[in-house]
Amino acid sequence: MLESLPAAASIPEVSARIAEALAEVESIFDAQLASDFPSVNELCRHVERYRGKRLRPTLVLLSGLAAAGGDTTRGLSRRHRVLGAVVEMIHMATLVHDDVLDEAEVRRRGATVNRLRGNEVAVMLGDYLISNAFHLCSSLGDPSLNLALGATTNTVCEGELLQLHHRDDLSLDERTYLEIVRRKTASLVGACCGLGARLSGADERVQSALERFGLAAGVAFQVQDDLLDLSGDADVVGKTLGRDLEKGKLTLPSVLLFATAEPSVRESLLAATLARDSAAVRSVLDRSGAIGAARRRAASFVEDAKKDLAALPASPARDLLHRLADAVLSREA
Amino acid sequence: MLESLPAAASIPEVSARIAEALAEVESIFDAQLASDFPSVNELCRHVERYRGKRLRPTLVLLSGLAAAGGDTTRGLSRRHRVLGAVVEMIHMATLVHDDVLDEAEVRRRGATVNRLRGNEVAVMLGDYLISNAFHLCSSLGDPSLNLALGATTNTVCEGELLQLHHRDDLSLDERTYLEIVRRKTASLVGACCGLGARLSGADERVQSALERFGLAAGVAFQVQDDLLDLSGDADVVGKTLGRDLEKGKLTLPSVLLFATAEPSVRESLLAATLARDSAAVRSVLDRSGAIGAARRRAASFVEDAKKDLAALPASPARDLLHRLADAVLSREA
Repeated sequence: MLESLPAAASIPEVSARIAEALAEVESIFDAQLASDFPSVNELCRHVERYRGKRLRPTLVLLSGLAAAGGDTTRGLSRRHRVLGAVVEMIHMATLVHDDVLDEAEVRRRGATVNRLRGNEVAVMLGDYLISNAFHLCSSLGDPSLNLALGATTNTVCEGELLQLHHRDDLSLDERTYLEIVRRKTASLVGACCGLGARLSGADERVQSALERFGLAAGVAFQVQDDLLDLSGDADVVGKTLGRDLEKGKLTLPSVLLFATAEPSVRESLLAATLARDSAAVRSVLDRSGAIGAARRRAASFVEDAKKDLAALPASPARDLLHRLADAVLSREA
Repeated sequence: MLESLPAAASIPEVSARIAEALAEVESIFDAQLASDFPSVNELCRHVERYRGKRLRPTLVLLSGLAAAGGDTTRGLSRRHRVLGAVVEMIHMATLVHDDVLDEAEVRRRGATVNRLRGNEVAVMLGDYLISNAFHLCSSLGDPSLNLALGATTNTVCEGELLQLHHRDDLSLDERTYLEIVRRKTASLVGACCGLGARLSGADERVQSALERFGLAAGVAFQVQDDLLDLSGDADVVGKTLGRDLEKGKLTLPSVLLFATAEPSVRESLLAATLARDSAAVRSVLDRSGAIGAARRRAASFVEDAKKDLAALPASPARDLLHRLADAVLSREA
């Protein structure tokens, strides 16, 4: 039990106990999704292939500890673990729903599209995850948590709808790009940190410092995601790359280049983008320095995130959040 | 205001005030979905084309009144109207997500499929509705309502997943068919009635009588929906018919006939079903009497529903629920 740790544990001790707590998050997650119907459970097993880094529950737990000044004797409760399962469920729902393809893509991608069990199963499985996330959150009996979570998922959906509205919009500007990213990705990451702190009884100032940390780190995370989709190693990333281009989503390097490049470069990028030619897109972005510029933007968001941590008392948990923010930039998967 | 009605209003008076309350439900619905982003509001306008009979909010309101013995001075509150908007939002989300098509259907239906804005928009719009429904419900500040709603939507999703599991399963038996229908359709209808009563402060006995009423009426409603999809008039029903066949969903007449028909009839039904030949399916079901048998099943669920109303004090609201149950069988749209 995390609660039995000494008040001032070392970084390796805290890491080990976070790992233990994550295992409990996973048990709560699985128990919540278990259905009376074997066929529903069978479909739910598809969710397993989305399991990844568990970044969001980790942030709930670390923020809960950091907000308590790293005092592991009062930092974490079962409520943190339940909330960890809730946010992971919401995140997985977004991944599952992201697998739904449009007509044109279906035609283009042919047989590879139906890895899961088709669009309809992806939709219903995602809905089952969303519904269970809200149900699990309601089990905590705190209406303000439900309200905060609902406001966050409203924002996530607005970000997704905004992104779809700007599909194939080659004049997307950086401000709108960042608004989309803040909503669709960073808002949930920010909520993980802010609500993790709230569950530890932190005051408003600490809660909002951690929420801002999560927002800034979340933006950096999404920019890095764009970069990996553009030029990552598919075997390392572990998912199909080039999806943004295929789905008509501009990534930050393209946004920056369309805004600043001279006509001939713009023309090359335009042609490559419209042709959905990912090698050509990558090559234009690389040569023009746009990939480097996007990396610098991500690094600056990480710096912002780390500054927000200064509002917290020093602790191993705060140090781990610091490391986690840095790791966003170096991650290859 | 409904509250200003005399305690013992007549049926036309109650109907008129329900219509007024439904207008308020609609205002709450629209206000909840309003976004800061014009493009999100634009996408939300697609939801309007799904607006229909507003059966579910009507049931919340009527059940609220009926549970209070039809005393319109204490029967309804703003909470009933908010819950009405919540359940309508959930219902619309299921309709929007039902528009998502699978690969094979996309190919078969060609250009007609993209009436909305494609699968991805349908998914995100549905998610936005679900998220807003939970957020709006949370605004009532009653964790037990959130918990009940979450349990209901879990059940709805299980029904949908169960249905997908049995897609193209020509050996689907009546028991499983009814389990699917109870979950995917009737559970939400039952919750509308039970929670409408709970918000009026009704005791457990009245709440559960109304929930059972909604469950039975909901099953009848879905069977009638199957029948309309099979042999309704597309202009009257107002939606594309034959979708169940296309999506591999067995309707009750087919379930009954596969279970009872002699080999030659089974063979004809099998061939017509596999060929997705709706005229031929309809013809076999008609001639064999399976459509009549399904109608009788629906009628018997309506009788069950009406019996549950006997637990309530006599009132115009109870009479209206009675009529509403009867109307399920005669509806053509």
